[in-house]
Amino acid sequence: MRLSTLFTKSTKEAPKDELSFNARILIQAGFIDKLAPGVYTYLPFGLLVLKKIENIIREEMNIIGGQEVLMPALTPRQNWEITSRWDSFDALFKLKGFDSKEYALGATHEEVIVPMIRQHAFSYKDFPVYVYQIQTKFRNEKRAKSGLMRGREFIMKDLYSFHMDEDDLENYYQIAQKAYFKIFERCGLLDKTFLTYASGGAFSKFSHEFQTLAESGEDDIYVCRNCSIAINSEIINDMHHQCPNCKSKKLAKERAIEVGNIFKLKDRFTKPFSYVYIDESGKKQPVLMGCYGMGLTRILGTIAETCHDDNGLIWPKEVAPFTVHIVTLNSREAESNNKVKLTSEKIYKELKESKIDVLFDDRETVSTGEKFVEADLIGCPIRLVVSERTLAEDSVEIKKRDEKETELVGLDKVLKYSQ
Amino acid sequence: MRLSTLFTKSTKEAPKDELSFNARILIQAGFIDKLAPGVYTYLPFGLLVLKKIENIIREEMNIIGGQEVLMPALTPRQNWEITSRWDSFDALFKLKGFDSKEYALGATHEEVIVPMIRQHAFSYKDFPVYVYQIQTKFRNEKRAKSGLMRGREFIMKDLYSFHMDEDDLENYYQIAQKAYFKIFERCGLLDKTFLTYASGGAFSKFSHEFQTLAESGEDDIYVCRNCSIAINSEIINDMHHQCPNCKSKKLAKERAIEVGNIFKLKDRFTKPFSYVYIDESGKKQPVLMGCYGMGLTRILGTIAETCHDDNGLIWPKEVAPFTVHIVTLNSREAESNNKVKLTSEKIYKELKESKIDVLFDDRETVSTGEKFVEADLIGCPIRLVVSERTLAEDSVEIKKRDEKETELVGLDKVLKYSQ
Repeated sequence: MRLSTLFTKSTKEAPKDELSFNARILIQAGFIDKLAPGVYTYLPFGLLVLKKIENIIREEMNIIGGQEVLMPALTPRQNWEITSRWDSFDALFKLKGFDSKEYALGATHEEVIVPMIRQHAFSYKDFPVYVYQIQTKFRNEKRAKSGLMRGREFIMKDLYSFHMDEDDLENYYQIAQKAYFKIFERCGLLDKTFLTYASGGAFSKFSHEFQTLAESGEDDIYVCRNCSIAINSEIINDMHHQCPNCKSKKLAKERAIEVGNIFKLKDRFTKPFSYVYIDESGKKQPVLMGCYGMGLTRILGTIAETCHDDNGLIWPKEVAPFTVHIVTLNSREAESNNKVKLTSEKIYKELKESKIDVLFDDRETVSTGEKFVEADLIGCPIRLVVSERTLAEDSVEIKKRDEKETELVGLDKVLKYSQ
Repeated sequence: MRLSTLFTKSTKEAPKDELSFNARILIQAGFIDKLAPGVYTYLPFGLLVLKKIENIIREEMNIIGGQEVLMPALTPRQNWEITSRWDSFDALFKLKGFDSKEYALGATHEEVIVPMIRQHAFSYKDFPVYVYQIQTKFRNEKRAKSGLMRGREFIMKDLYSFHMDEDDLENYYQIAQKAYFKIFERCGLLDKTFLTYASGGAFSKFSHEFQTLAESGEDDIYVCRNCSIAINSEIINDMHHQCPNCKSKKLAKERAIEVGNIFKLKDRFTKPFSYVYIDESGKKQPVLMGCYGMGLTRILGTIAETCHDDNGLIWPKEVAPFTVHIVTLNSREAESNNKVKLTSEKIYKELKESKIDVLFDDRETVSTGEKFVEADLIGCPIRLVVSERTLAEDSVEIKKRDEKETELVGLDKVLKYSQ
């Protein structure tokens, strides 16, 4: 992508009306735009990152047998009445159609998926079933003050699993946990992310959250460094301030962002919909269920919160909007300026042909200083400078966003250093 | 994808509570599921087709310079007040948040994109700007009776262009028309789709629709076969029943489905937002605008309406959920059954490795007759049968969905015939 044609612009200062760091820096760097509190537009850079996160999640969900569908946001009141959540769910947006039909905007989709799967899986031969979607969800938040962390509209992956018995549910629950860590690893969040025991609500003794350490998090967790697991403060008393694994009481209290959660729902939602299967002997048996949530936009916000320095964002490689940011430094002298331009264009073409995602700062009226400031703000992993000075040595200058040193690299080695 | 693990099932009969052909056949074949009138879930097959349509549209939009963003569905009342559409827009879903803030669910996005682009493009140096999104939209329809054709929730591509003068707008309007025909060609709808003059509403003399001939369409159009253009019946009197190009009065009245529409909005939306640009002499000038809509889910429905026979769907190649549908016919005799299975598995692996999308009917308890009926219903372009009989001749049987003849093809030529 060429910066000279991109319609968005980064700004010198962060917006003053935004409280959260993630929204401030993502707006300033031109990744998102704020329409209303908790409601954002994803601009080209932001959408590129979202699509990378989406593809990682899709790949890992497919590996554990997930089948992708897309459910609607308009969900009929009747379905929520059946599970008794029309009044009790804390943050449903509700609306009425011309036909007086009432809907909730889906904040989660148990009320849609259970009656749907019931039509397709009814015999013991049909189980287990793993179905997920990547879709826009809505929450009627009282206050939206954490940027992408707690939006009124956000994008989520929700996976639902259906099982014939508890062992099979437990087995898949473990498989899903591993897939979650794989996703956080690929998103650059693994080091800071802990499997966290949390309240199981009405469903079971515990649920599990995935919490990423960050000062700006909304949760307090107690981390056992021995076992790399944590306990949400909401149940720390029930757990007697003890690691459930090694029983140690040496737990460190930390702030963290919940980047995923998984529940054994068992028959909490299948029962109200009278969803049973027929076993081998012809008997009706309850269907048991697990659900596995993960917010794509929240992961985007969490990366912004945790991967940056004073100059801007520092994207982990696999989710960076671009791997390489080419900066062309214009020369005053026409002939050498021309050489710099031609060489930059050639490198841009070469990297694109090698399927490397490249941002190309080919703007001619922007100063060197501004270009460098913007490259740091946007935060691509590799900055590649082409200038009269580097070409004098048949080289380009390469700097990694998370390192201080620059390196001169021969023109014939550009591709190798850009991967 | 293996049919033995797919959670969805096709059914012997179409659902009785669904009036429209497209929804009936897509539900029967397991592509979609109905949650409420005008509100559908896209099951794995349906989602695969949607993603192919989406990729075609994205590629063609990028070719004409479109930059992709993702705008929210929750749009503040205030923005719709500014353009005087809060009350006048015919089908807005409206809702209120806890903070008494009112929103419309976006049915179109002029009210979001204009104030957003205004922040980024303000100098003559910044124009033109072309921005699009592929996103879920909502319409509070009084009656939802046309399946995917007129949903209460649907997926649209909406492109918006911003210009400094009418010539530039007109020029891009022509470029967008060509891109639209390219998309319809790739979706297999070109032969039946006509550029159609329609009412320009409050914006300009005409708008243009893209209408695909279909008995089930909601529009009447008058087609000039000489010029391959049409006139919507709503303006046929204003046009004096005459082709605007060749002036012929020989026009054929047809039913058709509107699969796209494009408008020159000029300053209809930029003016209420006081969106101007600064020209080279430092003067403020009005920004002119075009908009270009296309429903992905409507295209899916239109293909179902127009590409089928009595036995089921007939997907155009580029939008088919799978190019090849492998049908394994089980033998009673163990050894030859084993050979059929192994050969099928080998072909499945080979085609997948060659990046061909394959559906593999590897089910062991389903009869030959049922497998053939289902293959016709699902409608992949190529059916590839592996059986004891075909292997006796070191062959597979290939049948194209839109032809009657079958052909025996040597095992060494399978890849060639599957492309």
